[in-house]
Amino acid sequence: MNIVLLSGGSGQRLWPLSNTIRSKQFIKIFKTEDGRYESMVQRVYRQIRKADKDAVITIATSKAQVSSIRHQLGDEVGISLEPCRRDTFPAIALSSAYLHDVAGVPGNEAVVVCPVDPFVEDDFFSMIKALGAQAEKGEANLVLVGIEPTYPSEKYGYIIPASKSGISAVTTFREKPDVRTAERYISQGALWNGGVFAFRLRYLLNKAHELIDFTDYDDLFSKYETLEKISFDYAVAEKEEKIQVMRYKGEWKDLGTWNTLTEAMQENAIGNAMMNERCSGVHIVNELNVPILAMGLHDVVISASPEGILVSDKEQSSSIKPFVEKIDRQIMFAEKSWGSYRVLDVEDRSLTIKVTLKPGNRMNYHSHQYRDEVWVCISGQGKTIVDGVEHPITVGDVVTMQAGCRHTVIAVTELQLIEVQLGEDINVQDKQKYNLTETS
Amino acid sequence: MNIVLLSGGSGQRLWPLSNTIRSKQFIKIFKTEDGRYESMVQRVYRQIRKADKDAVITIATSKAQVSSIRHQLGDEVGISLEPCRRDTFPAIALSSAYLHDVAGVPGNEAVVVCPVDPFVEDDFFSMIKALGAQAEKGEANLVLVGIEPTYPSEKYGYIIPASKSGISAVTTFREKPDVRTAERYISQGALWNGGVFAFRLRYLLNKAHELIDFTDYDDLFSKYETLEKISFDYAVAEKEEKIQVMRYKGEWKDLGTWNTLTEAMQENAIGNAMMNERCSGVHIVNELNVPILAMGLHDVVISASPEGILVSDKEQSSSIKPFVEKIDRQIMFAEKSWGSYRVLDVEDRSLTIKVTLKPGNRMNYHSHQYRDEVWVCISGQGKTIVDGVEHPITVGDVVTMQAGCRHTVIAVTELQLIEVQLGEDINVQDKQKYNLTETS
Repeated sequence: MNIVLLSGGSGQRLWPLSNTIRSKQFIKIFKTEDGRYESMVQRVYRQIRKADKDAVITIATSKAQVSSIRHQLGDEVGISLEPCRRDTFPAIALSSAYLHDVAGVPGNEAVVVCPVDPFVEDDFFSMIKALGAQAEKGEANLVLVGIEPTYPSEKYGYIIPASKSGISAVTTFREKPDVRTAERYISQGALWNGGVFAFRLRYLLNKAHELIDFTDYDDLFSKYETLEKISFDYAVAEKEEKIQVMRYKGEWKDLGTWNTLTEAMQENAIGNAMMNERCSGVHIVNELNVPILAMGLHDVVISASPEGILVSDKEQSSSIKPFVEKIDRQIMFAEKSWGSYRVLDVEDRSLTIKVTLKPGNRMNYHSHQYRDEVWVCISGQGKTIVDGVEHPITVGDVVTMQAGCRHTVIAVTELQLIEVQLGEDINVQDKQKYNLTETS
Repeated sequence: MNIVLLSGGSGQRLWPLSNTIRSKQFIKIFKTEDGRYESMVQRVYRQIRKADKDAVITIATSKAQVSSIRHQLGDEVGISLEPCRRDTFPAIALSSAYLHDVAGVPGNEAVVVCPVDPFVEDDFFSMIKALGAQAEKGEANLVLVGIEPTYPSEKYGYIIPASKSGISAVTTFREKPDVRTAERYISQGALWNGGVFAFRLRYLLNKAHELIDFTDYDDLFSKYETLEKISFDYAVAEKEEKIQVMRYKGEWKDLGTWNTLTEAMQENAIGNAMMNERCSGVHIVNELNVPILAMGLHDVVISASPEGILVSDKEQSSSIKPFVEKIDRQIMFAEKSWGSYRVLDVEDRSLTIKVTLKPGNRMNYHSHQYRDEVWVCISGQGKTIVDGVEHPITVGDVVTMQAGCRHTVIAVTELQLIEVQLGEDINVQDKQKYNLTETS
């Protein structure tokens, strides 16, 4: 099975756990059988692998999410990088070109497209496998998943199937309705459109060439910024006549707000938290290493991260966006492909961070024009390269780097550094990367 | 006027803003006319100075609070140090001996004793001045303040005066009653006993010598630990026949819980905080430098510090003590006479803190047996002394100190350091102090 996971999201509705570089799909909130926590993207990835261990999984996403994806899923997952945001049709066209031209997937194979963050049971992905097989048969150009509605939702578009059978032709589509209209659709047998569908790769590439003037993946990538923002539904699905829907009866949740997210939590608290017996309907997610104590609250969500603290009535938690937009948000923590960092202290002319490198990993070899840096190693072993000179580094070692000096650190075991940045103008843009082999 | 302020408190009921070294009286929560915030002890100190600019103010307290007092009130205030906690009679005896033997206050002068943390208007301290004058007259050995009750409180003992006049003899005392009994007392003209009283210094010293075998201040100090725990009310007041009460009609609040403390706040939020228009009766005190967002809450207090986060229904905020006792509380921030520090990061074998020294101040000259330390200067100018060798220090300078090495830093301007502590056993007890003049 070839599957493309569309990974977008701005991260405001699940503040403070999500931020401009960590979208909601990267929050580790689901407890696994072995007691660890996994994110939505890790959960979906694990579920796909369970349904089809040989699945070719590609994530279509922007540059901002690449580090988080590599950190959480490792190096095996394919990434179709979007140079900028251009809605779903360009994203699917680009990832289809990527699959064909870069990953070498033949044109007659089926590709399934799915959002990266549905909260579903494992059987959903067995159904997805059947969806791909159905598309490969060629009875239709496009096979959609239609989810049997459990309530008259205003959040989904609806698919009107021609029949009640497991696989049916599609009569028509309906835009997101109000509740009363949704009730009418449902009484007429309508299904939710969750944005999951399959096609043969050749079909989509032909559609892409019809609508976009490009030669191959590299060409499409280079002109991506010039493409029109247009959704796949509008550009393709709603115009396609040879189209089917595969019915799915099972849990399907879009965990886009704190209210819906806490419904999917197995426990009332994650992280260091206490609540008295007079709390009811309280959920706490605490990513800070200090305790949260809740007393006598009802239907409240409390969420804390290095970015801030939210305390919200659950119903009203869907309205945080305008407030979050006002917050001047320095990124206070981030997962990188090589490990992670957390900001410990911010002053006008200094920034102190804690850097954790995974064993065998290293930072980019880089320099800063406008700041000096000091590293103090607080755990682990590794080596530094500073202006081409290699040195071992271990607990207690101090490395000072003037502005302009090229540097990196390579972890042998897990390695932790306190990094003090010093300068008049400290910002993440002040970074020049170098190829390590050329210089060391 | 000589005034002794009794400063005790364990700091659990106002967690997380109070901790084992910062009692509630040091929380900066009251907005001053110039827009800054002051603590209860700063407010009371300012109010006393306003009523009597020449007042001799002495704070009777334990060692744990000395740094906070010096940090908040400076070097002028007298401190009668209690070697350990021994209830109010020993504390008043010791501070009386201190006033007589150390501060040179004559025995015929009046001394007023007052808790350090009543929330009162300025006129209370004008009344206090009159209280001292009344004691000096010698009509009675002890003159108490009787506060006109505003509700049948269970938190106070009651004084039954002989008459309704401004100054009256005391008929008797009553223990803290239940509400119905309190109502009866009040209907009989009883007054609250707020623990404020005055006596001539000689009177109290004589009482002390009657009940304790000691010669002078130094002797009393040295045997303080052997003294019986006994309250002033029980040892002296309830047995005294020549006793008067001075009536006070005005605001008197004991801000001992979050619920009562928030009643005295002029604003709904202190620190980085936002709330939506559907919040009512919400108070936020945020000492962290990340935002708190409250949505749709009612009658809730939110308080955040480097020690933790409390979110509590106001009524139930008085019940946090058993929960706070369970928290394993590493001190995460502290005010010292020379400045302050805050813990930034805790690992098994390292601790990273941020140290701020006030201009002209310095740490003790000290060493650690079991940990190495690294300083990175992030702002200001000063000098370090390391094993007797002096060096200037400024932004970007790094100082490494092995275990056993003697060190201090002296701030010329305000100076900030990131200090990384490294060792298998990092604890605050591992500190050997030295006299700087002998070694440098």
